[in-house]
Amino acid sequence: MSEQQQAAISRFPVPELSEMPEDIRDRILAVQEKAGFVPNVFLVLAHRPDEFRAFFAYHDALMDKPGNLTQAEREMIVVATSNLNQCQYCVVAHGAILRVRAKDPLIADQVAANYRKADITERQKAMLDFAVKVSMQAFAVSEEDFATLKRHGFDEDDIWDITGIVSFFGLSNRMANVTSMRPNDEFYSLGRQAR
Amino acid sequence: MSEQQQAAISRFPVPELSEMPEDIRDRILAVQEKAGFVPNVFLVLAHRPDEFRAFFAYHDALMDKPGNLTQAEREMIVVATSNLNQCQYCVVAHGAILRVRAKDPLIADQVAANYRKADITERQKAMLDFAVKVSMQAFAVSEEDFATLKRHGFDEDDIWDITGIVSFFGLSNRMANVTSMRPNDEFYSLGRQAR
Amino acid sequence: MSEQQQAAISRFPVPELSEMPEDIRDRILAVQEKAGFVPNVFLVLAHRPDEFRAFFAYHDALMDKPGNLTQAEREMIVVATSNLNQCQYCVVAHGAILRVRAKDPLIADQVAANYRKADITERQKAMLDFAVKVSMQAFAVSEEDFATLKRHGFDEDDIWDITGIVSFFGLSNRMANVTSMRPNDEFYSLGRQAR
Amino acid sequence: MSEQQQAAISRFPVPELSEMPEDIRDRILAVQEKAGFVPNVFLVLAHRPDEFRAFFAYHDALMDKPGNLTQAEREMIVVATSNLNQCQYCVVAHGAILRVRAKDPLIADQVAANYRKADITERQKAMLDFAVKVSMQAFAVSEEDFATLKRHGFDEDDIWDITGIVSFFGLSNRMANVTSMRPNDEFYSLGRQAR
Amino acid sequence: MSEQQQAAISRFPVPELSEMPEDIRDRILAVQEKAGFVPNVFLVLAHRPDEFRAFFAYHDALMDKPGNLTQAEREMIVVATSNLNQCQYCVVAHGAILRVRAKDPLIADQVAANYRKADITERQKAMLDFAVKVSMQAFAVSEEDFATLKRHGFDEDDIWDITGIVSFFGLSNRMANVTSMRPNDEFYSLGRQAR
Amino acid sequence: MSEQQQAAISRFPVPELSEMPEDIRDRILAVQEKAGFVPNVFLVLAHRPDEFRAFFAYHDALMDKPGNLTQAEREMIVVATSNLNQCQYCVVAHGAILRVRAKDPLIADQVAANYRKADITERQKAMLDFAVKVSMQAFAVSEEDFATLKRHGFDEDDIWDITGIVSFFGLSNRMANVTSMRPNDEFYSLGRQAR
Repeated sequence: MSEQQQAAISRFPVPELSEMPEDIRDRILAVQEKAGFVPNVFLVLAHRPDEFRAFFAYHDALMDKPGNLTQAEREMIVVATSNLNQCQYCVVAHGAILRVRAKDPLIADQVAANYRKADITERQKAMLDFAVKVSMQAFAVSEEDFATLKRHGFDEDDIWDITGIVSFFGLSNRMANVTSMRPNDEFYSLGRQAR
Repeated sequence: MSEQQQAAISRFPVPELSEMPEDIRDRILAVQEKAGFVPNVFLVLAHRPDEFRAFFAYHDALMDKPGNLTQAEREMIVVATSNLNQCQYCVVAHGAILRVRAKDPLIADQVAANYRKADITERQKAMLDFAVKVSMQAFAVSEEDFATLKRHGFDEDDIWDITGIVSFFGLSNRMANVTSMRPNDEFYSLGRQAR
Repeated sequence: MSEQQQAAISRFPVPELSEMPEDIRDRILAVQEKAGFVPNVFLVLAHRPDEFRAFFAYHDALMDKPGNLTQAEREMIVVATSNLNQCQYCVVAHGAILRVRAKDPLIADQVAANYRKADITERQKAMLDFAVKVSMQAFAVSEEDFATLKRHGFDEDDIWDITGIVSFFGLSNRMANVTSMRPNDEFYSLGRQAR
Repeated sequence: MSEQQQAAISRFPVPELSEMPEDIRDRILAVQEKAGFVPNVFLVLAHRPDEFRAFFAYHDALMDKPGNLTQAEREMIVVATSNLNQCQYCVVAHGAILRVRAKDPLIADQVAANYRKADITERQKAMLDFAVKVSMQAFAVSEEDFATLKRHGFDEDDIWDITGIVSFFGLSNRMANVTSMRPNDEFYSLGRQAR
Repeated sequence: MSEQQQAAISRFPVPELSEMPEDIRDRILAVQEKAGFVPNVFLVLAHRPDEFRAFFAYHDALMDKPGNLTQAEREMIVVATSNLNQCQYCVVAHGAILRVRAKDPLIADQVAANYRKADITERQKAMLDFAVKVSMQAFAVSEEDFATLKRHGFDEDDIWDITGIVSFFGLSNRMANVTSMRPNDEFYSLGRQAR
Repeated sequence: MSEQQQAAISRFPVPELSEMPEDIRDRILAVQEKAGFVPNVFLVLAHRPDEFRAFFAYHDALMDKPGNLTQAEREMIVVATSNLNQCQYCVVAHGAILRVRAKDPLIADQVAANYRKADITERQKAMLDFAVKVSMQAFAVSEEDFATLKRHGFDEDDIWDITGIVSFFGLSNRMANVTSMRPNDEFYSLGRQAR
């Protein structure tokens, strides 16, 4: 009855849970258990099981592992670059995750529209300046950019992490735009309650 | 105590209500009465009373007058072009107004990130295609663009209206970015309740 | 008989003087009295009286008020940014006003084509560098830009003025391009006599 | 005493007439005889005699030879593309020549600012659309572009001519910008008398 | 002794084979066995074993699986988009693979510089037009683009494949540029022998 | 029998040697004698004898004269800027000449794809940074750019030379793209033998 039930979540075929390979179904059921709903990216990419597996393995290697970047900082990178790539799915879905991770109901909309004006640290703005440069003109990244990041306290591994996240979500943005991947209605309100 | 109380709403001086010319103070009090808070654009622009008066006269001439474009459609134009101009204030504030006008908690985030994937009509997408062209390369607008809009049912006055709104908010976007105009916290959650 | 008599000054309807609200007609007659002709922007925008009033109130608040920027400097800002926006009306009309204000027959064509090579001061070039940044990427304006302007002797109010002028004429450029507003023949030769 | 006497015409050395090779001096004297002054491009490029010779040989092969494009049309191409390249020398100098060739005091400023709004034919606008494409993204020129031109009556040789003129003045624009080539004061007023 | 022995293959640390996890070492040894050398991408990414595994799983899911796109066509997509992203590693390495797959010593340099002039079919040019659009402005991909591809004989799965390849190598291009990944000397001459 | 024999070398008519003016035929025969084949640019431009003469006079004045820039450095400039202009002919032909001049089989592909990662000196990278700026935004070249070049040891004449080469090959790139000038098969393998 909701609009979403009628609205397609992909312009490509989306398999039924029952048709999916077991490992993919298991991952989806685990996500549903944890989040209370299945983010559409799981269903849309299940159209291609091998790509699904690689995609989420890559995602987890960058977003769920230990490291100096906080989980909120990783999501800021996703939100800022995805908005410049005009990726509706990633801005809405990762905006929600950013609000939850940062326990801040305002931060995602701030970072999406113009991170330079967001309630974040100068260090985080430097991180996003670099992220945007990797997204838009990685060919021109130079040792000066590395030096700027180091002045803000980032080390070599942090810089690799930022780069990896930008690069991976650049892939994700392009897939989402071409598949017309629809953000779940649930994402829009997640994490908007006052702290 | 809230973060906003400490955060500056403008990088330029903001006058006290008591220092403002009477007509400006009256307008601000009327807005506060109606909305329950004073949108920061009123306070930031009160630094320049004559510009304040012209700005809101222009705003009202475009946004509050009768016409074929619904109020929600006018706000869609603001949200879509302001996001491309990376104007945090306008995306957040007019996103809220769009949700309220359209009675749709999802529409603003959809239109901001990529209106081509939003739950809006083909006619509205054509309107936003034109709005983006006026914003980004008005010099190339041609009779073909007018013909496309007319095929979607827009008339000459509607086209003027779209153009006026894009042009006025292009002004607003630049002022907001240079003044670092801060969106009120209240906007973020406005209109997000389910229909 | 002149070409202009036949050439449309707007692709939208232009009202007769007799049909206009009295305040608008009065303003137009006053301009004609002073300038010797009616700049077409007055006639084209008279199609929408409320927008006309707001437009010229805004114009006057920025261009005719006291302030540190000379009137010639304000016109330089208009000419430089309008040429990048490919706005024929504004380049031709404000080019004429710039020549008159600066008492310099060469300056407008110099500033329009490439202000970096114009016979203006380094301070004025810094002003135009900032103006172009506000016009093209206001989202990236930063405290560094403010500091550069201050090194050249501009104060906070001057920076607001520059920003206001760029923003207002960005509006004007878009309106002129979509309406195909035609510059009056008179503008082309105004102020071209040697000093 | 005039400002120009003091203003450098090039940021590179400019040879005295007496130091120039005879053929170059002769060409310059002939131009002076004909035009009444020596356009600075002759003096600036005389710094490099071999390049001077090739430059003007190329110029003459494109601009002074017979062909279907009128001389005014050739100058329109120069003016429209040079303004997009922000070349002050070429806009001012060839704007003057365009006014003279077209016997029209308005045409150069119109074509420079936005040729789509100039008092020229649809055929000439199609020519300039193509010229701008060659200047900005020649890599994407396709048989469709050729077909469009042919529908407007251009033949294969005309298309080569347009391309040659755009390409040659692209060279000229870059040389003029890097040398800070100064347009002669004489150009600004040339051809501005009513028809 | 060769220059490459001294030249770094990454600006990040590169692990010794003996330090790598067994599965990664095995994959590298298998590649070496097959190709005669180890492409540097394997060594550079081994710095991050989990990302290495996901990267090559994704690569294989797109490049080594059955499908309508020939292996040469997949490499054309990589070469054309990587050159626009100015990714030296990908242009050189996948240029070599393209020559080998297509058994054509000229094709890679043609496609890299301007695929519109390459010795490929109209269908392949349409494929690359779409690939470039996905790479540069995926947000604007529309049903019209799908229809164009279908007129050239591509089906829905082919379109997903093109999109996946562009998106994955967009990731790869950004990683290679930020790591300063160096192409192996061996790639430059591979496949250059006449057919 | 080879593909090239059938493939057109220009979308415009190409004259027979016997039809050409004697000086042009002589130049072509001399080139053939020296190089072992006739680079297609000679045949394509022979369609217009006067432009041919000016083109090669300009070419020789910049590329074959004495000066501080080595011949390899001049070719680097051509290759780097031609790839950004997506000129297949110039990248392939001058890539070959660069390999020969530099006696380095790798350098051309490195410089074409991303000169910032090429095996060249910091001084040469500064030269190419400037070359790219002249090619893409000559209007913004400033004394700061001259100062940077001088810190790297370039003098005023070197800067003119770089500018001339960029400007001339910008012309060449546009002509080659519009004529669909085909690189000779011979260029692809020239200079690829190990040092």
